[in-house]
Amino acid sequence: MDKTHKPREVLKADVIVLGAGLSGLSAAKLLKESGLNVVVLEARDRVGGRTFTVTGPKFKYVDLGGAYVGPTQNGILRLARELGVKTYLVNEKERLVHYRKGKTHTFQGPFPAAWNPLVYLDYNNLWRTIDGMGKEIPTDAPWTSPHAEEWDRMTMRQLIDRVCWTRAAKDFARMFVNVNVTSEPHEVSALWFLWYVKQCGGTRRIFSTSNGGQERKFVGGSGQISDKIAEQLKGRVKLNQPVVRLSQDDGGISVETLTGEKYQAVYTISAIPPGLTTNIHYEPELPPVRNQLIQRVPMGSIIKCMMYYERPFWREKGYCGTMMIEDEDSPISMTLDDTKPDGSCPCIMGFILARKARELIHLTKDERKQQICQMYAKVLGIPEALRPVHYEEKDWCGEQYSGGCYTAYFPPGTFCQFSRVLREPVGKLFFAGTETATKWSGYMDGAVQAGERAAREVLHAMGRISYSEIWREDAESQEVQSQPNTMGLFEEWLPSVPAFLSTIGASAVFLTALGVALLKPNMRVRLFC
Amino acid sequence: MDKTHKPREVLKADVIVLGAGLSGLSAAKLLKESGLNVVVLEARDRVGGRTFTVTGPKFKYVDLGGAYVGPTQNGILRLARELGVKTYLVNEKERLVHYRKGKTHTFQGPFPAAWNPLVYLDYNNLWRTIDGMGKEIPTDAPWTSPHAEEWDRMTMRQLIDRVCWTRAAKDFARMFVNVNVTSEPHEVSALWFLWYVKQCGGTRRIFSTSNGGQERKFVGGSGQISDKIAEQLKGRVKLNQPVVRLSQDDGGISVETLTGEKYQAVYTISAIPPGLTTNIHYEPELPPVRNQLIQRVPMGSIIKCMMYYERPFWREKGYCGTMMIEDEDSPISMTLDDTKPDGSCPCIMGFILARKARELIHLTKDERKQQICQMYAKVLGIPEALRPVHYEEKDWCGEQYSGGCYTAYFPPGTFCQFSRVLREPVGKLFFAGTETATKWSGYMDGAVQAGERAAREVLHAMGRISYSEIWREDAESQEVQSQPNTMGLFEEWLPSVPAFLSTIGASAVFLTALGVALLKPNMRVRLFC
Repeated sequence: MDKTHKPREVLKADVIVLGAGLSGLSAAKLLKESGLNVVVLEARDRVGGRTFTVTGPKFKYVDLGGAYVGPTQNGILRLARELGVKTYLVNEKERLVHYRKGKTHTFQGPFPAAWNPLVYLDYNNLWRTIDGMGKEIPTDAPWTSPHAEEWDRMTMRQLIDRVCWTRAAKDFARMFVNVNVTSEPHEVSALWFLWYVKQCGGTRRIFSTSNGGQERKFVGGSGQISDKIAEQLKGRVKLNQPVVRLSQDDGGISVETLTGEKYQAVYTISAIPPGLTTNIHYEPELPPVRNQLIQRVPMGSIIKCMMYYERPFWREKGYCGTMMIEDEDSPISMTLDDTKPDGSCPCIMGFILARKARELIHLTKDERKQQICQMYAKVLGIPEALRPVHYEEKDWCGEQYSGGCYTAYFPPGTFCQFSRVLREPVGKLFFAGTETATKWSGYMDGAVQAGERAAREVLHAMGRISYSEIWREDAESQEVQSQPNTMGLFEEWLPSVPAFLSTIGASAVFLTALGVALLKPNMRVRLFC
Repeated sequence: MDKTHKPREVLKADVIVLGAGLSGLSAAKLLKESGLNVVVLEARDRVGGRTFTVTGPKFKYVDLGGAYVGPTQNGILRLARELGVKTYLVNEKERLVHYRKGKTHTFQGPFPAAWNPLVYLDYNNLWRTIDGMGKEIPTDAPWTSPHAEEWDRMTMRQLIDRVCWTRAAKDFARMFVNVNVTSEPHEVSALWFLWYVKQCGGTRRIFSTSNGGQERKFVGGSGQISDKIAEQLKGRVKLNQPVVRLSQDDGGISVETLTGEKYQAVYTISAIPPGLTTNIHYEPELPPVRNQLIQRVPMGSIIKCMMYYERPFWREKGYCGTMMIEDEDSPISMTLDDTKPDGSCPCIMGFILARKARELIHLTKDERKQQICQMYAKVLGIPEALRPVHYEEKDWCGEQYSGGCYTAYFPPGTFCQFSRVLREPVGKLFFAGTETATKWSGYMDGAVQAGERAAREVLHAMGRISYSEIWREDAESQEVQSQPNTMGLFEEWLPSVPAFLSTIGASAVFLTALGVALLKPNMRVRLFC
């Protein structure tokens, strides 16, 4: 089509990987170790994708993107260990804080305590229901679950309204969705969210710090993992190379980048979030369902905010730094202590999530900083929170090559019909990226699982490994072991609010009848005639 | 960044228009007539976008994309008249057909009749409620309506379940959504759908053939309009030029295409569906809310199917060719007579919509044809429907440069926070495309309104016209006049099903009490004691 300019040299490889995030790099690493010639094309001027470690004198290093790891995330933990990157425990020694209706309550464990017995039952029933529904969703084929269509037609808000009886549980459920998937309950398919929580190991595993998804961080930052893989791949990772064209024919795949570079390979792995693959012009066009899938998987909305202080004053008052804040006026919904493992750079990490990210992005950085400090001071009841020594933040909504963070969500009605093609190869184009994982999808661990699985799909297509070798489960990490986190028998047995109320009602009727039966015969007549 | 290849000549213009659909061409036409130097870049090898007229010996010409026009669509009608393209009436002389629960009922008017009085009341209340709620939504700023957030958190399915009492009304409401916006009620924001219907003039206007959006088609096909504008712009429309890069600085806008061509201008108008503008790499990056908006506006799903017959046999039996088919086993939900105005090429046009488009795309063309014929034969009770002489179809889901048809939809929760930036300029980049219209958005008329408005925004930015001249309303077309279509007093006054039932209930109580009062005193005692 274009014959006017001097033809450039075409770089040839066995496999082209699109995207040098954790998933693409995991794929490339495995392929290189299998003796293949691989090239990784990255749109940005850095590797790491949605992980992003920045260094600076005020904070040494900080993860402005994906940061947390925990038990059962054995893929990323294995990779980190291999690369010599160590983990440390996020501080949760002191008590956690739950702020609601202007009041601060402290608690321990994954979820806030409730003194009102109805709220207690309602919370308990919420977690039990989410985990119970999750049990019938196969993580690798959610569209086959018995109630797939029905649950996909519902938003999580509808499900919450159906399950919860108390305002307190409804509000907390909203925050639970906000925190886990950086979107609103009314934006997401119930089926998708139930699947998401399930494939992370359930409500407790996904939400907990200790024994959960936020148990640890990497000493030196998560970005090191990508950096170290990129070093191993030296010269094979091409930065500033956004892909604009992907052509397939019997000969293989040709890829062209925004700068006019051309690459050729037999196979390609896309390790770009599915919604951002609309950025590429395909020849031939994508199959219809994939062409529409990639319009239906928006990325969540988040601004990650790091507030640095002179001292970790919250610990001195018996707070570990975890705050769950339910207040429409609070920019931040959730915090964690982000002080370095050696106690230096005392810091509170906070998330501005979903609707709030879209609202507060219009403020200046300094306005956000002020609002956040004020809220911390209010929630903790400590004026020292008003005097930070430094502030860092990262708005992921404005990132062209991430689209948002943490991950893609499925709006109602889209998960059933479209998720089945999420990792279905298109000719010799295979799909990685944390969105295509079946365990800890949306997390760094899912990125590794997906990248390595896609790499093994290519190896299988080449005839180098058997079909049964494509999916592989990591052994449990020796350093980071998981503790059981299933519900106790007591919680399993506790009634829901309506069951409790009808028991109370039935008991009242029974007791009244019993009382009446014991009364004098003539009184019975008067009462019942 | 790229210094290895011979620099090409950069084509300069006053305004670059992206997309040679109706909207982009309308913009370019107006700009050219204002004396500006304009260039239109089109990704495909043809103009017309989502309008697509094909010619062939079996059917002369056929509109495989946007086709219908009607009263109040004064922009497209003016443009067509100016270009010498005439309209003709879609056949609706005979009776319409409503197929439900395996039975065929005929009717006249916009909506099927209902013999069951509860269903009648329920239908009536549905249309009244949709139109009534629409009254409080400003078409140019839907996010400002009093219940904007509440309605945006709901899907249309939730609203339908709330408003409708009978299965019949709920099912028809689902079809109404399917037909109007090629998506499912559980996929779309209620606020968005209510806005959509309102800006088309209400439930009757949007759904009707006579006196509604489907009243007419263009003799020779709708594609002629784009073809004729492209002729006028001769040489200024560049085909096969998908845009891959858009850079802005103080000097203006630079645009680069997939083939490496470079263009420069002071202003640019994007007339691409918002969700497909993710196809472009922006320098600098788009503002965060726009960067996330364009991930949240998927295109609807449709396969348009034209079944040609020897004779218009349906007319002979007293059917006009319009069928509204409620049957999960029917590929088609809605048909219209597509016979040429001179009676040649007898044809039934049918839509495979939303969920069904995604399911049936996996069949072969011939399988779809067979299924459709069989359903037509069943619905009309005429075996001749099994013997078509030709079949044409167009799957819009697989079109890379449309993404789907007719238009973009907003999933729940997205319309409030994101629609406000839909046509907000980004520097010197302005936004056209039917999705940005405030009247008949989603239609050809909206495309024209949006294109001309964006062109006048540029003229205003250049200081050539005043701010108040940007938005202009067309005078009513002389040839295609609208009739009033508001609800009659009777329909306005009719109760909803619950109101009716409680009236009945209250009347029953009142009449019983009245009867009792007229009874003998000793009977009263027996009854009440």
